[in-house]
Amino acid sequence: MMVIINNKENADRIGDYLNSLKVSYQTYNTTESIIFEINDTKNVLDNKIIESFEGVLYVTPLVEDSFLWSRKNKTEDTSITLDNNYTIDNKHVTIIAGPCSVEDVNQIEEITKGVIKAGAHILRGGAYKPRTSPYDFQGMGKDGIVLLHKVKECYNIPVISEIMNINQVEVFKKYVDIIQVGARNMQNYELLTALGKINKPILLKRGMGATIEELLCSAEYILKGGNKNVILCERGIKTFENSTRNTLDLSAIPVLKKLTHLPVFVDPSHGTGDWNYVESMALAAIAAGADGIMVEVHNNPMYAKSDGIQSLNLEHFNQLITKCKKVAKAIDKEIL
Amino acid sequence: MMVIINNKENADRIGDYLNSLKVSYQTYNTTESIIFEINDTKNVLDNKIIESFEGVLYVTPLVEDSFLWSRKNKTEDTSITLDNNYTIDNKHVTIIAGPCSVEDVNQIEEITKGVIKAGAHILRGGAYKPRTSPYDFQGMGKDGIVLLHKVKECYNIPVISEIMNINQVEVFKKYVDIIQVGARNMQNYELLTALGKINKPILLKRGMGATIEELLCSAEYILKGGNKNVILCERGIKTFENSTRNTLDLSAIPVLKKLTHLPVFVDPSHGTGDWNYVESMALAAIAAGADGIMVEVHNNPMYAKSDGIQSLNLEHFNQLITKCKKVAKAIDKEIL
Amino acid sequence: MMVIINNKENADRIGDYLNSLKVSYQTYNTTESIIFEINDTKNVLDNKIIESFEGVLYVTPLVEDSFLWSRKNKTEDTSITLDNNYTIDNKHVTIIAGPCSVEDVNQIEEITKGVIKAGAHILRGGAYKPRTSPYDFQGMGKDGIVLLHKVKECYNIPVISEIMNINQVEVFKKYVDIIQVGARNMQNYELLTALGKINKPILLKRGMGATIEELLCSAEYILKGGNKNVILCERGIKTFENSTRNTLDLSAIPVLKKLTHLPVFVDPSHGTGDWNYVESMALAAIAAGADGIMVEVHNNPMYAKSDGIQSLNLEHFNQLITKCKKVAKAIDKEIL
Amino acid sequence: MMVIINNKENADRIGDYLNSLKVSYQTYNTTESIIFEINDTKNVLDNKIIESFEGVLYVTPLVEDSFLWSRKNKTEDTSITLDNNYTIDNKHVTIIAGPCSVEDVNQIEEITKGVIKAGAHILRGGAYKPRTSPYDFQGMGKDGIVLLHKVKECYNIPVISEIMNINQVEVFKKYVDIIQVGARNMQNYELLTALGKINKPILLKRGMGATIEELLCSAEYILKGGNKNVILCERGIKTFENSTRNTLDLSAIPVLKKLTHLPVFVDPSHGTGDWNYVESMALAAIAAGADGIMVEVHNNPMYAKSDGIQSLNLEHFNQLITKCKKVAKAIDKEIL
Repeated sequence: MMVIINNKENADRIGDYLNSLKVSYQTYNTTESIIFEINDTKNVLDNKIIESFEGVLYVTPLVEDSFLWSRKNKTEDTSITLDNNYTIDNKHVTIIAGPCSVEDVNQIEEITKGVIKAGAHILRGGAYKPRTSPYDFQGMGKDGIVLLHKVKECYNIPVISEIMNINQVEVFKKYVDIIQVGARNMQNYELLTALGKINKPILLKRGMGATIEELLCSAEYILKGGNKNVILCERGIKTFENSTRNTLDLSAIPVLKKLTHLPVFVDPSHGTGDWNYVESMALAAIAAGADGIMVEVHNNPMYAKSDGIQSLNLEHFNQLITKCKKVAKAIDKEIL
Repeated sequence: MMVIINNKENADRIGDYLNSLKVSYQTYNTTESIIFEINDTKNVLDNKIIESFEGVLYVTPLVEDSFLWSRKNKTEDTSITLDNNYTIDNKHVTIIAGPCSVEDVNQIEEITKGVIKAGAHILRGGAYKPRTSPYDFQGMGKDGIVLLHKVKECYNIPVISEIMNINQVEVFKKYVDIIQVGARNMQNYELLTALGKINKPILLKRGMGATIEELLCSAEYILKGGNKNVILCERGIKTFENSTRNTLDLSAIPVLKKLTHLPVFVDPSHGTGDWNYVESMALAAIAAGADGIMVEVHNNPMYAKSDGIQSLNLEHFNQLITKCKKVAKAIDKEIL
Repeated sequence: MMVIINNKENADRIGDYLNSLKVSYQTYNTTESIIFEINDTKNVLDNKIIESFEGVLYVTPLVEDSFLWSRKNKTEDTSITLDNNYTIDNKHVTIIAGPCSVEDVNQIEEITKGVIKAGAHILRGGAYKPRTSPYDFQGMGKDGIVLLHKVKECYNIPVISEIMNINQVEVFKKYVDIIQVGARNMQNYELLTALGKINKPILLKRGMGATIEELLCSAEYILKGGNKNVILCERGIKTFENSTRNTLDLSAIPVLKKLTHLPVFVDPSHGTGDWNYVESMALAAIAAGADGIMVEVHNNPMYAKSDGIQSLNLEHFNQLITKCKKVAKAIDKEIL
Repeated sequence: MMVIINNKENADRIGDYLNSLKVSYQTYNTTESIIFEINDTKNVLDNKIIESFEGVLYVTPLVEDSFLWSRKNKTEDTSITLDNNYTIDNKHVTIIAGPCSVEDVNQIEEITKGVIKAGAHILRGGAYKPRTSPYDFQGMGKDGIVLLHKVKECYNIPVISEIMNINQVEVFKKYVDIIQVGARNMQNYELLTALGKINKPILLKRGMGATIEELLCSAEYILKGGNKNVILCERGIKTFENSTRNTLDLSAIPVLKKLTHLPVFVDPSHGTGDWNYVESMALAAIAAGADGIMVEVHNNPMYAKSDGIQSLNLEHFNQLITKCKKVAKAIDKEIL
């Protein structure tokens, strides 16, 4: 760590502090300043405390290379192969589609057949639903997960569903192909730590109030445990603009692509909260370089038990895929 | 529920939809519109779907009175009496103070003695720490909670600490007086539901990306379970301004006071992220009508294992309390 | 205007208020409420005042159709033909490119030749620069405008530049093809009003803190004066995310396309503040349906007098256009 | 300026760049890095360009001391004495009150008498109104300014009104005591520059999308011209929270007080947009250290031509002042 201080008096104070913590360092004098090179291998220093000393002009920020998500630690982009041999990588655009909530066998079967026919690679379906109001439909719970699993077996399509707490890890491990951590749990660190200990792919959604850096730090909790199969998913942040439910931050795609080797997905359904805008934003996400999109589709949106307003019907979803393929091709990517 | 539609053709479509859901209604014709009064006792309708119909001019928004937090359902403000008979209410300003993290017995004892002497009513101390980076100090865990409890017994001061997951409920019930739900877990609905089933007071912090309405909906998860002892706590929201770590939304105080009977606290330490601004914001919170403040205090902030930069030392805390008492008195409140 | 009130007592109060303002109305009684249909042709009522009356459940919001920007008032999308017969419309993607600031004759000539060769349709170049700090380069002023005009004559390319105050209208009218109103002046209503009285095309940038609705209201100031040639331009809004200078709100494209007949452009250079992200965001904007993009290009970005960090060099710009053409084609649009 | 680079190869590139710009520098080698001390007296370097070079670890940020607003350049807080000898300073809390718009002679006289009686020091009244919609009341224009001036003469109270463009400077100079620059014009740099050349006190409101740093940079435009009488005014920023019209950022008070010697005012009326919250926020602003508050007051808010919903009536204003005096006293300030 390097610290630059404006004059000798202030430098002496920093020196005393470092001595009191038994941290070794070396100093250099330049015309305008004194420079400390600090050897803090035990990580005892808090950057913000150092910055708060009088006369401190600069403290080396946290070094990016120390994180497992960093491109500096892994030259190749992460690719994730599912049980059915479908691979998520940066040469293809993966399409995840399905209803907000699994509601009953007919609903999920009809949607599954529809999205497979249109070309989706992975089926989504919520069983445990994090709803803002306790009076809204809370999902089918474990029955929903089991139902999703039956559909998976029957139609041979990988499935993804959202986990809500650490006690559900075993069930999700058994029944789903990808475990989703929702925006509201992005900083539920105990859950992330638990998911780091298994080997299932995790799709981690960005919190509505979380920066890109915070998203990456949350991914680190999973990676650190040994689970390398992490997908990041942008789904809209809170801003003052209220014509859409959230503001889909598509700049996050190139920013994340520059920083990390992990796959980057986009959810335009939650990102906009209105099916009218889903197609435009899905195409934009692909053009900006997303490795996958996650879209809510319902056989009968008006009668959906949750999020009907942001769900595409099967016909619109079919049109969307056709357009997605064209845009993917325009940027030299493929949709299998 | 009332729905207003612009013309007969569109009204017919809504009528068909309501019929298909077997929801009863009555209509009125005015010069410009058709009005539906809908009797949806089973709560099958989704407001957003109704709004999305063509020609819909208005749909009654979610009715505030249906929530337990609403002032419309309870004329008196909620007051909460702790085991040592100290009462949190709207006539007093309650002071919670203590370190970000419990670090060791000497640290917590010295701080406890200091904050009690200065006039704090409740001692805070983190044991399980939700840290953005997995490489930062994660707290002492259960040892920290037990240590906090020993201090409580020894110095006769109620204690508060942050819970991180549903499996910790029993431990927290046993050892602390108030259970804190942190900003990152504000929408961890399974945790909130679990806390609704016990009788301990809960201090619920507003998420950094959460609206006031979402905070109240989260409180409802606890209240609905039967636990009426909920304290709301503003601690700063994410905005574009970066001279403070978050933007403390003090308008939330009068807004919440208008809507709910629950006590409203403010945490100026996390809200600003810099001890230099804590005093101003604490005084402002009291002047704006907060029922309590929660302040980070450390015997030696520069050597704190977490959040030292936003912690007051004991001397500054002492000065703060003196000023708080004056401001509280100026608005006819008291600090015991 | 329609107002719905919960009971008779409160309805009487509204009645008295309307009577005092001599506004006529009719009432209807339903089971749960009393409805007022108000005939306020003289526009004397303030919606917010009406809403503040006790017991008011609903007030008709401001009606969209009353604005000239509304799609409800004009079935065809606005197209704008420039003096050289190039037309901005919804079937093509228009490319505006050039330096942040006109610096000298060599710089502007070299850039002009480069962007024309790559395929740009319109040349941008700032002469009056709104800089956050008064100590930064403030532009060449009128000399810059004249220089831009010479280049236009010489290379036969339309030019756009940013206006800063009402006293510059005559100069801009004479020398440029499109007048840009910058984000910082989006609510400089006197300037907008002055620009409504001339016939030049205006490119109106969205303010960094402005909602889509506010952008449209600002456009209305120009349209109302009689100038129908308004282009809207998204260029990033202020949010808590700080890995990009602003957050480019691409959802604004489909939202604006739904509401208005005016052309919608996107500026990915200011929107991200970093040339590394410009290509991704430009392609995303086109995929989302933008009618044009505005990109900063410099022959030697490292030596630019302003905004070098967000400027593409000529080689990158050339690559960008090649990719833009492919993405435009993928969504059935053309770049001439 | 100091620049730190990670290795020799990258350092050579920076060296070449500096040489090409004929900027002199000196280098130091440490174990981990090479340090450049650059002597850039002519200000030709752009920090962001330097930062974009490969291997650059650090560039000295813009130095605060170089700005006239900086506390580092002026030990004493700025105080401003008006023509009637009333002084705005940091020992008192100044109260500005009055209607959003001057409407007619009776209205302004009644309000003036009321606010003087209650204890206001300065009368506010808008004549040129920046309204989001062009169809809203745009103010009385010059007649309003003249009317305000007559009231000033008659009741011997200083007046403040908002200026809209550079052509109005002479009129405002003649008729008002303090010229207000509104939030929408905070970055109208030509107006700021013009106001720097006169000697009238300027109250500069923070833009709804502007950071504290940007506010200070705008103040610098005025100070740089020679006009030292600048008052800064916080009035709410745009955030995702929508229960108040804007989010009043009261942390801006201690942050500004730490950085600048200029007086800091707060406008709780625009900051909240709802008169119900004005009192709480006014008291909070004073407790946080504001040197003045600016409050909208109307003799008959329900019949106001603009902003009635956020205006206090005279009775509430009277109560507010009583409470303000108590809170001011609690923090050892005085309201004359």
